[in-house]
Amino acid sequence: MATAPKITVRPARREDVAAIVALLADDGLGAGREVVSDPPAPAYLEAFDRIAANPRALLAVAEDAEGRAVGTLQLSFIAGLSNQGAELALVSAVRIASSLRGQGLGEILMQWAMDEARARGCRQMELLSHASRTDAHRFYERLGFVSSHIGMKRAL
Amino acid sequence: MATAPKITVRPARREDVAAIVALLADDGLGAGREVVSDPPAPAYLEAFDRIAANPRALLAVAEDAEGRAVGTLQLSFIAGLSNQGAELALVSAVRIASSLRGQGLGEILMQWAMDEARARGCRQMELLSHASRTDAHRFYERLGFVSSHIGMKRAL
Repeated sequence: MATAPKITVRPARREDVAAIVALLADDGLGAGREVVSDPPAPAYLEAFDRIAANPRALLAVAEDAEGRAVGTLQLSFIAGLSNQGAELALVSAVRIASSLRGQGLGEILMQWAMDEARARGCRQMELLSHASRTDAHRFYERLGFVSSHIGMKRAL
Repeated sequence: MATAPKITVRPARREDVAAIVALLADDGLGAGREVVSDPPAPAYLEAFDRIAANPRALLAVAEDAEGRAVGTLQLSFIAGLSNQGAELALVSAVRIASSLRGQGLGEILMQWAMDEARARGCRQMELLSHASRTDAHRFYERLGFVSSHIGMKRAL
């Protein structure tokens, strides 16, 4: 097995958007939902600008030593009354480049996300993972997540 | 069966916080997590202030004709790159007063939430519902939600 690349996790910049979209599409479920191009379609850049303008959203990118984006996730920090007013962090759009899965990069990325959420005072992290992603469920359970809930979605 | 009360759904105000916390606690799972008091504990008021200051969060209350809070939910509007930059709405902390369940109030509240999310340009709504809440799952499925995901949580 090749040595896993050393990665650095950091907030995404606008020039990362094309690479992040490519990662989102590098996935069985994501492939049909995204439009991969460089430069990216305007809708992606507009969405990036909304994320960047929101102090309660954080789009992260993991880059290897050559500066290639090899992973991404998004955090949303949510204030609520529940749980005595505890803040929570919602994680979404987690991806590691398909050629690099199973080498521990996802754990580095998620640990970064948990540290970031703790630093912002969040007491809980949650996510929805498609029922078909059984490898992902095992991955998250190793990281301490509990499959206690059903994740439900509806188009509007 | 008593006639279901006519309800009005509106954004919550600070003076609704005690009643909303009581609704959150009026539930098998929520009872052990909340501290019910009037005036509410400072942590709840501080959380309310964070929600009120966030243009991407909306705490709703359903009140009956006498102005009593009989339902609540929270919406969080989340920008993301996924799905070609589609905005999504996360629904959480949905409650109807236990004495009034099964009379259609939850549907009025959720339809209000979906309308609000559509008006803000959201193309998808999602939620996590505890695996034990099978009545709630059927309720959401009747409203068009699909139980396509696992909802995972982790304390931080």
